[in-house]
Amino acid sequence: MSPAPLAAAVGVADVLTDLFLVLLAAKLGDELFKRIGQPAIVGEILAGVLIGPSLLGLVEPTEVLEVFAELGVVFLLFWVGLETRLSEMREVGGVAVRVGLLGVALPFAGGIGLGLALGEDTGTSVFLAAALVATSIGITSAVLIELDLLGTRASRTILGAAVIDDVLALVLLSVAVGIAADGGVDVTGTATVVVLALAFVGFFALGGTQLLQRRPRLLKAPRFSESPLLPAVLICLGLAAFAAQIGLAAIIGAFIAGLVVAETKEHDPIEDEVAPLYAFFPPFFFAFIGTEVDLGALANPGTLLLLAGVTTLATVTKFAGAWLGARSLGGRDAAFVGVGMVPRGEVGIIVAGIGSAAGVIDAELFAVIVGMSIATTLLVPPLLARLARRDVPPDAVSGEPSPP
Amino acid sequence: MSPAPLAAAVGVADVLTDLFLVLLAAKLGDELFKRIGQPAIVGEILAGVLIGPSLLGLVEPTEVLEVFAELGVVFLLFWVGLETRLSEMREVGGVAVRVGLLGVALPFAGGIGLGLALGEDTGTSVFLAAALVATSIGITSAVLIELDLLGTRASRTILGAAVIDDVLALVLLSVAVGIAADGGVDVTGTATVVVLALAFVGFFALGGTQLLQRRPRLLKAPRFSESPLLPAVLICLGLAAFAAQIGLAAIIGAFIAGLVVAETKEHDPIEDEVAPLYAFFPPFFFAFIGTEVDLGALANPGTLLLLAGVTTLATVTKFAGAWLGARSLGGRDAAFVGVGMVPRGEVGIIVAGIGSAAGVIDAELFAVIVGMSIATTLLVPPLLARLARRDVPPDAVSGEPSPP
Repeated sequence: MSPAPLAAAVGVADVLTDLFLVLLAAKLGDELFKRIGQPAIVGEILAGVLIGPSLLGLVEPTEVLEVFAELGVVFLLFWVGLETRLSEMREVGGVAVRVGLLGVALPFAGGIGLGLALGEDTGTSVFLAAALVATSIGITSAVLIELDLLGTRASRTILGAAVIDDVLALVLLSVAVGIAADGGVDVTGTATVVVLALAFVGFFALGGTQLLQRRPRLLKAPRFSESPLLPAVLICLGLAAFAAQIGLAAIIGAFIAGLVVAETKEHDPIEDEVAPLYAFFPPFFFAFIGTEVDLGALANPGTLLLLAGVTTLATVTKFAGAWLGARSLGGRDAAFVGVGMVPRGEVGIIVAGIGSAAGVIDAELFAVIVGMSIATTLLVPPLLARLARRDVPPDAVSGEPSPP
Repeated sequence: MSPAPLAAAVGVADVLTDLFLVLLAAKLGDELFKRIGQPAIVGEILAGVLIGPSLLGLVEPTEVLEVFAELGVVFLLFWVGLETRLSEMREVGGVAVRVGLLGVALPFAGGIGLGLALGEDTGTSVFLAAALVATSIGITSAVLIELDLLGTRASRTILGAAVIDDVLALVLLSVAVGIAADGGVDVTGTATVVVLALAFVGFFALGGTQLLQRRPRLLKAPRFSESPLLPAVLICLGLAAFAAQIGLAAIIGAFIAGLVVAETKEHDPIEDEVAPLYAFFPPFFFAFIGTEVDLGALANPGTLLLLAGVTTLATVTKFAGAWLGARSLGGRDAAFVGVGMVPRGEVGIIVAGIGSAAGVIDAELFAVIVGMSIATTLLVPPLLARLARRDVPPDAVSGEPSPP
């Protein structure tokens, strides 16, 4: 057939084909890893590596796929928020703050130390450190859901710490950008970032839950929807977009939206209705992480050595900091929290991208930071699964509905 | 706060904000139109006009929004396919073929006549005619669902005719491109298009339904999913992508996927699970149509006159052709079918875009064709609602589950 009449339709056809291939590959990876008894999300990530530019080259990490990946982790954290009660978060509040603070301080110090030891200048060292800081809660959340451990005290601690962690990462990123740009720290700007971020979290988490506690039928009021699904999704997208606009991770907004919506009496039907969105979008997130790996850029001994060093540093410092912060939970839970905070996932990649744009992170270091993000992400699911099998936390809540 | 650290996150933040704004606007338009007793999708389309570049300029029709719009109409037709049985389609097969053929022939002849009467050359006239041909079944489907009339004989006829219609539109587009390029018709290429399109429809609609009739548990076999949702969604995306790759509308693939999946015993739970995807995506489709309107380009008397003429021609010829084809259903059903086939929606816009790229459709004619697509789309929902209130077809099936 003549290809000419298809010209305008080809854009849409190719995007649909990309979406189909990514979802199919992710689910085949999931299937394979379930069958060999390994964590499903590792299968989804490796499927992304396989079809990505490094190996088969079937798909590129395009903007559209990035948006689907972002919505994947947004709906993932919305789901986690729906499964969480603010009151339960308050119970672990003190521990979570300690885990967040120490879990940021140690990797940051370690990153600066490593950068200076390698002979990098201050700007590069601070950026490397900032890239080691932020936990990607998406990976850990998915594993906690897969292991049916979202309801445990250790899991709540990880979730709370991830919120603190993200606020701190935003602050450090702001500092790093200031140093890279003009060698100084913009104290007013940084203070504004902190206040805005804390105000956002406080205002929506506390105000929103109170509003829906008092008026639980609010989500059912609009006539445009026979169920509370679309009002809930609008809250999720709105808070995610708002969080992203003020520089926080979008998923912090989505998590808070989940907390807020969970307060309504319509809690259960909302979960049933969100489940299909939660089943559809997150595989794009995991597979997309895989497509971002650049195996070619890592294929020389010096880079691999640097990757091993950075990954070890990132893992050990985050584990140690979080473990120290969570000691009051007891050794087994503290270890669980420590491991759960290790994945860097997409957050490290975003920071590295900003540093690369600012000219302080070169191509090799960028590939190493991306590699570290993926490596810490692949490391954690089997470790958490093993810890969970050996040491089921004493307060484990099971029987919550799994998504389809 | 300093905006610099947000640089890399701004892409994601802006896309999330766009998605939030479009969904919010669409649902507010829906709410308003429901409250004033008008068809909800007209409210969603006008909300798109309002926030689009012509008026408030809050969002542009970006590639990402186009993909969400496309998935909107894909999941809409998948839903319609799920609500339809192939056996019911066969009952109306003969009428649907007549409606499809006559509903294409009259607008095509009228378009060529108008083009030549306006003094355009053959290439432009054939393109104008091709843009008048293809019914956009998305709009009519949404209205039929809203009116709870998807189960009637007239509705089945419209769906069947839309499939025929799309195959014929593909053929005529291929002819038009040939004439625009070198003045001739590529007979072999056009024949290949026809054979490939018919083979696709026949192979998947017949083969797929038979396969799932015989092995109704096939969708439950994979371990990657506890429910048949993701296997079903993969079939939908796969057939939509395949249809788009061979030049058919993606929605034809999605409709066939719905027909196929509807044959499984798991029919009902699949509907419940697809409902949230069907609630989430289609508003992007309707609002996106609105954002494509260019009110500025239409704002002069000559262009408005041309728009009125083309819209009248498009409406009258399509209604007359479809009505003639459906006469055997009786006058009331024939009128319902005739009105239901009128919307051109996105299909006319795609054809006009191809003609514009081929240099035979100028900017004014492009704006007129887009305007005609929107006008026919806005015209039909209130007309169908009025026909349905006055003349409920005798075999109307009601009580089917509405989406949330």
